[in-house]
Amino acid sequence: MTTASVVGGSGFTGGELLRLLAGHPEFEISQTTSREYANKTVGSVHPNLRGLDLRFVAPDGLEPVDVLFVCTPHGVTMEHIGEYRDLADTVVDLSADFRLPEAELYDTWYDGHVAPEHLADAEYALPELNRENLAGADLIASGGCNATSTILGLKPLVDAGILTPDDQVVVDVKVGSSEGGAGGGAASSHPERSGVVRPYAPTSHRHEAEIEAYLGLQVSFTVHAVDMVRGSAATCHVYPEEMPETKDLWGAYRETYDEEPFVRLVAGGSGVYRYPEPKAVAGSNYAEVGFERDARNDRIVAFSAIDNMMKGSAGQAVHAANVALGLTETAGLDFSGLHPVGSP
Amino acid sequence: MTTASVVGGSGFTGGELLRLLAGHPEFEISQTTSREYANKTVGSVHPNLRGLDLRFVAPDGLEPVDVLFVCTPHGVTMEHIGEYRDLADTVVDLSADFRLPEAELYDTWYDGHVAPEHLADAEYALPELNRENLAGADLIASGGCNATSTILGLKPLVDAGILTPDDQVVVDVKVGSSEGGAGGGAASSHPERSGVVRPYAPTSHRHEAEIEAYLGLQVSFTVHAVDMVRGSAATCHVYPEEMPETKDLWGAYRETYDEEPFVRLVAGGSGVYRYPEPKAVAGSNYAEVGFERDARNDRIVAFSAIDNMMKGSAGQAVHAANVALGLTETAGLDFSGLHPVGSP
Amino acid sequence: MTTASVVGGSGFTGGELLRLLAGHPEFEISQTTSREYANKTVGSVHPNLRGLDLRFVAPDGLEPVDVLFVCTPHGVTMEHIGEYRDLADTVVDLSADFRLPEAELYDTWYDGHVAPEHLADAEYALPELNRENLAGADLIASGGCNATSTILGLKPLVDAGILTPDDQVVVDVKVGSSEGGAGGGAASSHPERSGVVRPYAPTSHRHEAEIEAYLGLQVSFTVHAVDMVRGSAATCHVYPEEMPETKDLWGAYRETYDEEPFVRLVAGGSGVYRYPEPKAVAGSNYAEVGFERDARNDRIVAFSAIDNMMKGSAGQAVHAANVALGLTETAGLDFSGLHPVGSP
Amino acid sequence: MTTASVVGGSGFTGGELLRLLAGHPEFEISQTTSREYANKTVGSVHPNLRGLDLRFVAPDGLEPVDVLFVCTPHGVTMEHIGEYRDLADTVVDLSADFRLPEAELYDTWYDGHVAPEHLADAEYALPELNRENLAGADLIASGGCNATSTILGLKPLVDAGILTPDDQVVVDVKVGSSEGGAGGGAASSHPERSGVVRPYAPTSHRHEAEIEAYLGLQVSFTVHAVDMVRGSAATCHVYPEEMPETKDLWGAYRETYDEEPFVRLVAGGSGVYRYPEPKAVAGSNYAEVGFERDARNDRIVAFSAIDNMMKGSAGQAVHAANVALGLTETAGLDFSGLHPVGSP
Repeated sequence: MTTASVVGGSGFTGGELLRLLAGHPEFEISQTTSREYANKTVGSVHPNLRGLDLRFVAPDGLEPVDVLFVCTPHGVTMEHIGEYRDLADTVVDLSADFRLPEAELYDTWYDGHVAPEHLADAEYALPELNRENLAGADLIASGGCNATSTILGLKPLVDAGILTPDDQVVVDVKVGSSEGGAGGGAASSHPERSGVVRPYAPTSHRHEAEIEAYLGLQVSFTVHAVDMVRGSAATCHVYPEEMPETKDLWGAYRETYDEEPFVRLVAGGSGVYRYPEPKAVAGSNYAEVGFERDARNDRIVAFSAIDNMMKGSAGQAVHAANVALGLTETAGLDFSGLHPVGSP
Repeated sequence: MTTASVVGGSGFTGGELLRLLAGHPEFEISQTTSREYANKTVGSVHPNLRGLDLRFVAPDGLEPVDVLFVCTPHGVTMEHIGEYRDLADTVVDLSADFRLPEAELYDTWYDGHVAPEHLADAEYALPELNRENLAGADLIASGGCNATSTILGLKPLVDAGILTPDDQVVVDVKVGSSEGGAGGGAASSHPERSGVVRPYAPTSHRHEAEIEAYLGLQVSFTVHAVDMVRGSAATCHVYPEEMPETKDLWGAYRETYDEEPFVRLVAGGSGVYRYPEPKAVAGSNYAEVGFERDARNDRIVAFSAIDNMMKGSAGQAVHAANVALGLTETAGLDFSGLHPVGSP
Repeated sequence: MTTASVVGGSGFTGGELLRLLAGHPEFEISQTTSREYANKTVGSVHPNLRGLDLRFVAPDGLEPVDVLFVCTPHGVTMEHIGEYRDLADTVVDLSADFRLPEAELYDTWYDGHVAPEHLADAEYALPELNRENLAGADLIASGGCNATSTILGLKPLVDAGILTPDDQVVVDVKVGSSEGGAGGGAASSHPERSGVVRPYAPTSHRHEAEIEAYLGLQVSFTVHAVDMVRGSAATCHVYPEEMPETKDLWGAYRETYDEEPFVRLVAGGSGVYRYPEPKAVAGSNYAEVGFERDARNDRIVAFSAIDNMMKGSAGQAVHAANVALGLTETAGLDFSGLHPVGSP
Repeated sequence: MTTASVVGGSGFTGGELLRLLAGHPEFEISQTTSREYANKTVGSVHPNLRGLDLRFVAPDGLEPVDVLFVCTPHGVTMEHIGEYRDLADTVVDLSADFRLPEAELYDTWYDGHVAPEHLADAEYALPELNRENLAGADLIASGGCNATSTILGLKPLVDAGILTPDDQVVVDVKVGSSEGGAGGGAASSHPERSGVVRPYAPTSHRHEAEIEAYLGLQVSFTVHAVDMVRGSAATCHVYPEEMPETKDLWGAYRETYDEEPFVRLVAGGSGVYRYPEPKAVAGSNYAEVGFERDARNDRIVAFSAIDNMMKGSAGQAVHAANVALGLTETAGLDFSGLHPVGSP
């Protein structure tokens, strides 16, 4: 068994990692840290994990381990990365601190970088994009959830040359409240967020930087908070120079994803769930992608839906760790979602 | 007092009209019809109206009245329009049957038109667009809710020449469950619609026809069901040939809306509610519009939010009737919405 | 016109009062205070009131006024009550500080009382209970929302002698998130409160003290947070010594409420809304009460539903002020709720 | 591997069974029937199961199998029970048709019984109540979800003699929308059920019969629909003849449940989740039970929360099948729920 620890286990992402690691056939949880809840049981913060016999330890109590999953905030992980890399053979970071390939990007989009020398080692976690480089990687950076849903939705079009850097792409994202983390704030309080459709990152969203770095496309990106707890749904309005036929679109999506264990194509069909949507994947590591061809406007609408806590962060991190360590890729992640399910 | 009746009063829109008319200082409700609930009290279907001493009558019991509000489904109103126009001096139709200016459009977008001779008399109900023509009109057609939110959001840009028919516009709409009416269906059942982000009209949506007819623009339009009961929120991604300065944008929105009693400009600022959103206007006849300038992508993001039951249908209809009859324009509609409010 | 001011206007209750006063034919808003938002517009905190031309003033800027509505927290109002009573002819307090008739009760249920000499002047605000004493009152205390729904549901049984202090009564309450105020906290954050059924006052709830003081009954009281923003729904399980007939129950409820403008009897019938429920009254000052007779268990189930922001606090306060000042009792409060409506 | 089939696999319970069986290490799915969706993929109805390579067959295409899970409606299963018992060694029924021990009870609570001769063979599925009898059973009846949550909450008090048939018990239940099944109806439509607190079985609820049969107690039972998709939360107000001490209560709950793999005691503590609630167990087979001692009213408040689709039906059925077949009791059911989670 491979030992794994989680830094910052009391937040939402940390809790989701603990859930996944507890049920993972190849990992054994060693420790989890929390400054605020040191010595308290994990179950006292994450009620779904009341059955886990584990207590948080203070951050300075972290011991050597095979794999270290880090859930400290942006700007904080980079301050401790040296320490983390000393303690663990493999570090998987869920912050944004090692996602972007170059330090200059951190100057533009964040508040600069204090450990840029590690950036060259860092591998972007999304296996559907970066599988070859993940094998054997010892520093892995999990992507932003909205960047993940967007990249998954657009990649087939880029791979097939249907979408090129010159084409117009508008990405309109709808995301759940868990994306804001456990801290909350006035805008996240139930009375203010129930039934909401609220633009909160109308322009210049940081996830644009990831999308550009990894897909090579500059996109127009707008994010809205909607009433769900888990989910990132991206609607990508694409204007290719030449409109492909529907069969070419199917071909492109199949080519990119047919072998992918966690991506499902959903486009049209019958019943209630005809296009990708978060409810269909909630609680699971699956992503649904699909498209609709709009001849009238020479537009392709590409849809993508994930659970932001899973494929958008914790699930992606564990999937990447499986690949990095040469384990069965789907280990600990191949369970299905729920139906019916509300706003999971 | 002007007498008013509502055909199809048991549905959501009919119930909203009854609520507005009951509280309107100038209107007196004469009758309301329902095939299914004939003889039952209005309060037995609309619990908020339990205090109203009024029963539904069968459709064939309709008597002459000053103003007739019609809430029968698309395709049904047109079959009875002659009858309705005989019974009432002014008919306000909430279906799509008289919204579009030409019969040919009904061949393209609907199932044809059986009473096209009335189309020439019909005036589109949105006063912010059509006030002059509404005065004295005797056949008024209330717009589609998603078309309404879109038109309100884009009109200032069109008026100011910032947006022309050659420019690219993507409209991504999020709408509430009341838009589907009281009939429901599997997709509208609570287990299937709770926490949803579901594209259901990815392309070729009928509201595109209205937008084109009244703004002169062809837009790419996609609609998503989200978890709220009332609300239509349009995010319009606009790529003008020349990017205006922020002050020009403010100028354009003020020029179009400064005198409008029911439109509020909301763009930036502090607190939780910085951009237009449905929660801010739920239950009221107000619309919020605003914008954000995205220099990086030469894009303007225009936002618009309304309550689909109010500004998007019943409130719009009453507002139009006020104008048509020369009453105080805001009569019966000038109450505010709620805060806090959930998914109203 | 009577002038009215609101102390603590930036919270939920204060915002609801401003909404009601702005639309009230007899009141004219003079000022509203807020420590945190002094000088900011009311609309910057309450988006539904963006149309109101009014800014918050610092608490020390409060000037003399006819009626002062006070929304400071429990324990704070009592510290300033002398000041408030000097500034205004009539003070309406929405905290718990003057609700209970005796100072000793504050020792038991709260943290003691610092201005007990004012308690004798204070009149409980619920007109359905205390109308005669409210006329001319100059210090009025609005009830707790859960106590209000409970009192309204049980009063007819007490009035008719069907329920006496020796009988068993279990009150199981379900309340909305706005009850917790605008401050929020971890438990009120959207991810933690969405889809919830959470007991948070399983026993010994302060509202028991009000119920006992005003109905003369000791009740077993348990409160649960559920997923709605507005609403207080009380299910009262009553075991009378002698089971009344259904006609006696109807008689009791009608006797108590037939003349009451804001209470509706709802018990059985057809359709979706057969018993009292919050959705039927959301946004309005109405209360619905009803019952079901359970012969099998010699039990009466009494139901009561209100909007906690309206009949449970701000609406109740304005209603009481109308009575106290000899205005038309229903002035500014006689609008209906919404249908359809989500979690308003 | 043991083969298992599901009759009525297109409904919510059938879908949940398929999810569990697909992930169960000891079961292999043979067939699933649906009249409406014969030949369609399971994934076209249950989007979470799009990865399952399985199509519905017409009901008459059912073949012999080791274990047959039956999800036909009440009154329908009993008509086909002979057929089902011929086709399968073990039949697990999720309807109410074989839950009650005597045919007379079906005359009182349902519409009579057409196959009463099978009742004697039927074993109630709840292992926490009936484990010994389940071993080797060939006809198993899964309990009603609200009866299950209630029984789990009260059993320790009955076992310990704290609660006897002479004592008063009021059970106030809050249940999710999935309880109504996939059929829906007006009351289940999103606009009518969003944000709801609606009593719909105020008295004389069928689940009372189960509670009486299996706990030997007559309870006063009232059920409310609330806004969540999954969940059954029972608040039991108990008035024992003699009030036990808190340590006796802990003793009673531990005695009954310490060895139970799927029941967790939650009573008090810190953090957000202090008492049993549905969000803590959503998606999982766990039940949370707890209590609070109310000395003031000589009352014990017992809380119980389950996921109605899991512990309340499909999870219970699979758990019972594990016991009946002598498999590892927790096989296929020992995964945790989610946190954060909305209205799952």
